[in-house]
Amino acid sequence: MELLLPPLDRDAASPMYDQLYDTLRAAILDQHLQPGVKLPSTREMCSQLSVSRNTVLEAFARLQAEGYVEGRVGSGTYVTQDLPDALLSARSVSTRESAPSVETMISERGRQIVESDPLPIRPWSRLRPFYPGIPSFELFPLKVWRQLVDRHITPARAADLFHYGASEGLPQLREAIAAYVGASRRVKCTPDQVLVVAGTQQAVDLAARVLLDPGDAVWMEDPGWQCARSAFLAAGAELVPVPIDDDGFDLDAARRRRPGARLAHVTPSHQFPLGPTMGLVRRLQLLDWASSSGTWILEDDYDSEFRYAGQPLPALQGLDTAGRVIYTGTFSKVLFPALRIGYLVAPDALVEPFRAAHALANRHVPAVDQAVLADFLAEGHFIRHLRRVRAAYGERQQLMLERVRDRLPDILEVAPDPAGMHLVAWLPPGVDDTSMAEAAAEAEISAPPLSYYSIESPKRGALVLGYAGVTPAQIKFGIRRLADVLRSALGTT
Amino acid sequence: MELLLPPLDRDAASPMYDQLYDTLRAAILDQHLQPGVKLPSTREMCSQLSVSRNTVLEAFARLQAEGYVEGRVGSGTYVTQDLPDALLSARSVSTRESAPSVETMISERGRQIVESDPLPIRPWSRLRPFYPGIPSFELFPLKVWRQLVDRHITPARAADLFHYGASEGLPQLREAIAAYVGASRRVKCTPDQVLVVAGTQQAVDLAARVLLDPGDAVWMEDPGWQCARSAFLAAGAELVPVPIDDDGFDLDAARRRRPGARLAHVTPSHQFPLGPTMGLVRRLQLLDWASSSGTWILEDDYDSEFRYAGQPLPALQGLDTAGRVIYTGTFSKVLFPALRIGYLVAPDALVEPFRAAHALANRHVPAVDQAVLADFLAEGHFIRHLRRVRAAYGERQQLMLERVRDRLPDILEVAPDPAGMHLVAWLPPGVDDTSMAEAAAEAEISAPPLSYYSIESPKRGALVLGYAGVTPAQIKFGIRRLADVLRSALGTT
Repeated sequence: MELLLPPLDRDAASPMYDQLYDTLRAAILDQHLQPGVKLPSTREMCSQLSVSRNTVLEAFARLQAEGYVEGRVGSGTYVTQDLPDALLSARSVSTRESAPSVETMISERGRQIVESDPLPIRPWSRLRPFYPGIPSFELFPLKVWRQLVDRHITPARAADLFHYGASEGLPQLREAIAAYVGASRRVKCTPDQVLVVAGTQQAVDLAARVLLDPGDAVWMEDPGWQCARSAFLAAGAELVPVPIDDDGFDLDAARRRRPGARLAHVTPSHQFPLGPTMGLVRRLQLLDWASSSGTWILEDDYDSEFRYAGQPLPALQGLDTAGRVIYTGTFSKVLFPALRIGYLVAPDALVEPFRAAHALANRHVPAVDQAVLADFLAEGHFIRHLRRVRAAYGERQQLMLERVRDRLPDILEVAPDPAGMHLVAWLPPGVDDTSMAEAAAEAEISAPPLSYYSIESPKRGALVLGYAGVTPAQIKFGIRRLADVLRSALGTT
Repeated sequence: MELLLPPLDRDAASPMYDQLYDTLRAAILDQHLQPGVKLPSTREMCSQLSVSRNTVLEAFARLQAEGYVEGRVGSGTYVTQDLPDALLSARSVSTRESAPSVETMISERGRQIVESDPLPIRPWSRLRPFYPGIPSFELFPLKVWRQLVDRHITPARAADLFHYGASEGLPQLREAIAAYVGASRRVKCTPDQVLVVAGTQQAVDLAARVLLDPGDAVWMEDPGWQCARSAFLAAGAELVPVPIDDDGFDLDAARRRRPGARLAHVTPSHQFPLGPTMGLVRRLQLLDWASSSGTWILEDDYDSEFRYAGQPLPALQGLDTAGRVIYTGTFSKVLFPALRIGYLVAPDALVEPFRAAHALANRHVPAVDQAVLADFLAEGHFIRHLRRVRAAYGERQQLMLERVRDRLPDILEVAPDPAGMHLVAWLPPGVDDTSMAEAAAEAEISAPPLSYYSIESPKRGALVLGYAGVTPAQIKFGIRRLADVLRSALGTT
């Protein structure tokens, strides 16, 4: 039989036998070469394609190994007889038809995940000044970190650290975290209650999986952290927006709106993004409610390391005597986000469910990173770094306040915040914060609008301005630019 | 008023004011100090406790900042009047009562997670010879890896790599993976279809979340990978065990048992743990069934890098023209498990749902590790390492076969496997593999029984013996020991 094959490409990256194999396989699958057909002899192929005998033999051997062709002793090579004809033609039809729409095919759960809109791209999403929650990288002790990493990538350590690890985390890191949150946040826990997870995002996701069923109500601070919102929506929960007053999460409003909530997501140390601290009475009331109603409290202590004035309030968890609080913190803010390490402190009864959920999700957090972080904490580098950035961030907040008040006194209203990494800059009443944020984004300034963090429209618009990871020079330049943008957008001069 | 306070501990790690604060706070919360009660003056406290005035002032300031006490000008410090009495007593009651049982409190979903029994502890779970699926760490090029890590922990790179990253993964790693699976596995994909995830465990978990609703049926190879089983069970799926024949996954049996399955989890390149390769006809039938019935195929290509004889069969994914195959691979086997990096290649229509699910689960895989791995692949270290370990593992398998046949010819039946990291060693008919594995574990040998990987009891028992991460000396010693254990357990000599 005469076989018309496309010429092979001598300059291609893939070897000649590979190309010949591909060509013949495609011809068989497309039924240009029908089942039972005899292939040209090795000699014929060599001369037709001007290739070596080895090239043809290699391609034939592979096709035979994979079942596309079969050799009959003394009589050459044939396309496999029992390749089911119907299958082959069904396949060529399906290549022509378009696939059915995916929307009708993924699960209801998958649809909820997509609709929860995690990490959406918005004009202000780019990580540049003044995107909130980003720490300073230029102050990070890279050399120390590198030395600690090098210490663990050695034959002596690899035998342990390269292996599958425990889902709850490395023992030395759990101990270091328990000591740290005990001393600095008065969290009451043993290392056994600490679960090392891939950041607060994972802590929230695990809580949603372990504690919520579809249809369960969740009290969400409004405005609040939009990533937690996505995690609960994806879990099929009903979000109940709870307003924020001077004392933080408004428990009375929450109880009026939906008394039977299964879980409350709260940021009592420094409400995100508005900033108030939940007072003692409110804390006791919330704990009391939780213990009598069976509501879980997810305490998200995302940035309480950064306090510039007064003593930080101890964590809500330390007051909990009924085992209703799941406490979570992160190293994304003090160290760096791409490390993807955070922690969750679970009441004793929840330790095993959370461990199991974590084992299913990603087995464990990379072990070398955990070992490095444990040393970084235990050897005092963490506290030294924290002191250093805390001082810098305090100065940066001060500079932000001065510059905003200097350049935009009539447009943005800012007040000092005793804690955190960002300021809330209130716009004049009636001004739409989303369009201001969009205008700023066009001028390369990321200043998310308060509306972005809100479920119900905020009464007054504001821009959320991160300063921690922004150098003084960038602050000066950025506020000047923001002033130009806002003045031009608002038509003032 | 006379206040009886426990003495403070001068040698404790926590400062004196901290201890005083704790003592007073506990007294208030326990109502030893009732609302409205006047505290002793600073001077009295100093003399009673033999501490400095600053210590007392610091503790008082903190209690006041947190709302436990209030100062009245000129008249001293009082326990806050409006600390709600009922709250405080409710709290002391709840400390005495035991918390309600957690089983009645976590969600149905949480209960399924716990019951799916992820990563259970069994006698044979310890990571020592011959636990399967563990690569060699002593052959790993630690120095190269360390140099690559150091390259990225620098001021120039930190600005990018320390930031929040894309959920789909670093572009350079997605490109390197697409090139690798294209060339070595004939996976047809663009880098846009590649999602970098935290190992195969996460790939399976994301697939369960995106593609399955509770009650959906999943075809599971039986025996098969128990971690995938847990992930599907936790998602509320109905597991349909599908027997394995010489051609792998038995499609006819699957269709008879449950025609409407939503997903099939298959290991066509090298069935886990039995080893057969799915032939071409079976592959085409499975793809045809998937495209006509709307079944998803999760192709788990966990160890096809290790092939010692013949050409590896191309991935099933490369034959899929209907977009029904989700392909997943891992670096746990070629590099090391604690790295926690794997990948998933999704059909175009599923890229966004999988990205969203990954963003919710843990945002992204640590970025420095991704950058290091991308360089390791792009600069040829990966292929060099792979060649090296492939040669070593081939020799180790050979040694295992020799030693087992030498020491246990009448007890264990083994056959060469052209691929993989373990051998299946069949026990004499009628011998219970679980009790043999338990006996081995007591002698420090981890040899999981085939039953452990099975949903329905296997017709004949076997031990699964990993050899890849076991040195020749350990193999010799371990098989001698295993022989002693099995002979003694079976009463043969």
